[in-house]
Amino acid sequence: MERPADQIIVIFGASGDLTKRKLLPSLYLLYKTERTPEKFAILGVGRTAYTDESYREFINNQIRSFIREDEIDETLLADFIAKLYYETMDPSIEDEYQKLVSKLNSLTPLIDNKQNYLYYLATPPSLYTYIPTYLNAVGLTDEQGKDATKRVIVEKPFGYNLTSALKLNSIFNTAFHEHQIFRIDHFLGKETVQNILALRFANGIFEPLWNRNIVVYVGITAVENLGIADRGGYYDTSGALRDMVQNHLIQLVALTAMEPPALFESESFRNEIVKIYQSLKPIPESQVTSNVVRGQYIASISGKTPIKGYREEKNITPQSRTETFIAMKVFIDNWRWGGVPFYIRTGKQMPTKVSEIVVHFKKTPHMLFKGSEYSSAPNRLIIRIQPNEGIALKFGLKVPGSNFNIQQVAMDFAYDSLGGVPSGDAYAKLIEDCMLGENTLFTRSDAVEASWKYFDPILKLWNARTDIPLYGYPAGTWGPLESNLIMEKGHTWTNPCKNLTNTDLYCEL
Amino acid sequence: MERPADQIIVIFGASGDLTKRKLLPSLYLLYKTERTPEKFAILGVGRTAYTDESYREFINNQIRSFIREDEIDETLLADFIAKLYYETMDPSIEDEYQKLVSKLNSLTPLIDNKQNYLYYLATPPSLYTYIPTYLNAVGLTDEQGKDATKRVIVEKPFGYNLTSALKLNSIFNTAFHEHQIFRIDHFLGKETVQNILALRFANGIFEPLWNRNIVVYVGITAVENLGIADRGGYYDTSGALRDMVQNHLIQLVALTAMEPPALFESESFRNEIVKIYQSLKPIPESQVTSNVVRGQYIASISGKTPIKGYREEKNITPQSRTETFIAMKVFIDNWRWGGVPFYIRTGKQMPTKVSEIVVHFKKTPHMLFKGSEYSSAPNRLIIRIQPNEGIALKFGLKVPGSNFNIQQVAMDFAYDSLGGVPSGDAYAKLIEDCMLGENTLFTRSDAVEASWKYFDPILKLWNARTDIPLYGYPAGTWGPLESNLIMEKGHTWTNPCKNLTNTDLYCEL
Repeated sequence: MERPADQIIVIFGASGDLTKRKLLPSLYLLYKTERTPEKFAILGVGRTAYTDESYREFINNQIRSFIREDEIDETLLADFIAKLYYETMDPSIEDEYQKLVSKLNSLTPLIDNKQNYLYYLATPPSLYTYIPTYLNAVGLTDEQGKDATKRVIVEKPFGYNLTSALKLNSIFNTAFHEHQIFRIDHFLGKETVQNILALRFANGIFEPLWNRNIVVYVGITAVENLGIADRGGYYDTSGALRDMVQNHLIQLVALTAMEPPALFESESFRNEIVKIYQSLKPIPESQVTSNVVRGQYIASISGKTPIKGYREEKNITPQSRTETFIAMKVFIDNWRWGGVPFYIRTGKQMPTKVSEIVVHFKKTPHMLFKGSEYSSAPNRLIIRIQPNEGIALKFGLKVPGSNFNIQQVAMDFAYDSLGGVPSGDAYAKLIEDCMLGENTLFTRSDAVEASWKYFDPILKLWNARTDIPLYGYPAGTWGPLESNLIMEKGHTWTNPCKNLTNTDLYCEL
Repeated sequence: MERPADQIIVIFGASGDLTKRKLLPSLYLLYKTERTPEKFAILGVGRTAYTDESYREFINNQIRSFIREDEIDETLLADFIAKLYYETMDPSIEDEYQKLVSKLNSLTPLIDNKQNYLYYLATPPSLYTYIPTYLNAVGLTDEQGKDATKRVIVEKPFGYNLTSALKLNSIFNTAFHEHQIFRIDHFLGKETVQNILALRFANGIFEPLWNRNIVVYVGITAVENLGIADRGGYYDTSGALRDMVQNHLIQLVALTAMEPPALFESESFRNEIVKIYQSLKPIPESQVTSNVVRGQYIASISGKTPIKGYREEKNITPQSRTETFIAMKVFIDNWRWGGVPFYIRTGKQMPTKVSEIVVHFKKTPHMLFKGSEYSSAPNRLIIRIQPNEGIALKFGLKVPGSNFNIQQVAMDFAYDSLGGVPSGDAYAKLIEDCMLGENTLFTRSDAVEASWKYFDPILKLWNARTDIPLYGYPAGTWGPLESNLIMEKGHTWTNPCKNLTNTDLYCEL
């Protein structure tokens, strides 16, 4: 396996939650499995004052809770923590970047004086406008050769609407070339998401079925059985459309619908993703309410435990009109998919946590076994992203016995039978990719813009027209019943059982 | 569930093996599950002298070994045995049939004087030429209405070659109308064989794949890990082609390849089967050796146990040239299948007992993930008929990890998860069908003839040309290596593992 070139990883927001919960644990696991560079250092940067020593101590105290116990090797962990450094600075002030320059210069001997830097922006989005510009101003974005790569990973949300996304792209693209920019979406780092590509393009039998002639509709669900927890401040200004639909769900649509790329390399792949975004059929203002349903969870009781409504959550305004649920009908205007609805749905406080894509195939054109109690449920392919990652094909077989009764059964494959998802999961995979300069699974600027272009009018309309309904739904349910009204005749959501067991992964309500 | 009309079942060969091993146990199980007529009697007929009483005693002693212990209900079994009667007669002598007439007349009061008779021919095939003619001569084949149905079930082999099959058809069709004749093939009574129809015609996704554009070849294997046991006398005059290929294997070809019937009823269905037989591309004499390979097992050792060669088996002539193995390449000359080889294979003393159909689909036209260690194994659908009846789809998925390596995995469905095969299995199902007058799963005369027409020239050639090789293969192996030579480039037999386990039903050597 190729290892990344020696480099220094600079984390902006080094004292924040994401760093201790995800980034450093992922980097540790990469280190443990020898997927980090031979030589590297991690430089934390932030307003909170630490020395190298006190930062190491802070991380040493914190990181253990976020690594699986059996993954902790005390010697390796100590080695890893010894590679941490820290520089106290305010990233919103240009002058402070001289400190960063000096610190980096003092660290480069650790990597044989190479100047390969990876910047990880784990800060609030408000800082995204400063950091690239000021890094550029002090010459920290220039690549002069193979030992001076400069890459930047940006966390979502990348923009708040079309205007802000365009502005951010302009800032980043002034400071960096597109190939240096890695807009991270941990969803794309998930094994099963990548497996959509393998399923479609490494197998001969799915492609002939994968079009408007055989597929009737596609349902994509990514829901959680939790509320917003401590994220009220962020969530209330974001909402489900920005938080989940505009990035994750539309990406799942694109992976399901895209044409095979010419090559399995970044630009070919991302060209095909963008083509799907560009083919999304715009929803005219007059049709928004019949194609998009939004909801907000209200207080409810689970067993004997009361569940708070959204407006009672911490840091939420009691009149908040932020949506915690979206169901939406999307069309892709191209030759392969014209007329096939893609129903996408996301929500907080739903009955279970599940992400899956369900491809609904055409019924048989003719009911041969009509004399019997023929169940005409059409075939479906379920691609389960979480939990219990796997694939299931629902099809009809004869029930044992002397009649010719057909029953729906599932042929399935559990992904963990392949040995399970490797250490570190999505973040590790994506950080490793970035260190290798491999940007296939990162979002390109034109994709960000095309996606916003599609969703922006909906947000604008909601903002302008307070008479557009925001339906309440009791916490713990499958969202407002109005989400069924966007479905065409005969189409339904697939609601997995609340408790998915190993023996019946694909049971449905 | 519909129950058959009241009737008397007349079994010719009532003291024979088949009767006690299969027919009466199956009838008992039908009785136990209320699938027999409300009123019925079973009249055994044969040369061995019994009275009603002594026949009941004989069966009472014998039948228990052939019924699963938990299926035995003493009261029900006693009731069932009380419904047995016997008439001693020689079925090859016309005059004896008057005894049958009298006996039947004495029994009809048991079924309210109706004259519904079902004749089961469980005799050596040599008697098939007499029984229909003599039954006809005494008026026992005439149907005069709904209470005088006359049906006849004939065991295989139905004919020994084209000439004898034509002759037998002519005898049966003189004595009976075609709708009265039930040529039984217990293979077709198997649930999974019937499930080929359900799989194909109750599901929308297989049909678009089911043709020469997507299917590259089909492999059908039906092999046993036993020798010929006590059947030497029969087997040595028959051989694998007559015993398995001409009836069972070609039927599996037909079920896999047939067009959807217009209706799911007997004539529509059997019309489509015959169309496949008629489309079999004849093998010219000069090409027999390159399309058909025959073998005979030779002595071998399994672990420390010596296994006899075929020529050492009981009742086999030491110079026997009877084949115990056949591998053969079959083409179907029609629009759907033109150019797609169907490889069929059967044998005695193979490594395991398995019957399955493997549909091999085209490779992806393009190897997208070629940078990785891409396994290009194409998709395959396995329809397992026995053991472990079920369906598996072999396809490629991404191996967890940071590379894009593709591995073949199986999505599978075990048929017994639907509740298992009901009591009595294939014979019960077919006898019940016959009692109901339902002949979909029985072979029609034109099918018998079309099949013999295809295979007869091969038998003739073997008979005429002793220089055509009969390859020896050590007992316990997958047959002569020459069976690979009929395969086109890149095509292979699928050899299941010797010990199929529940966790890996579809493992392969």
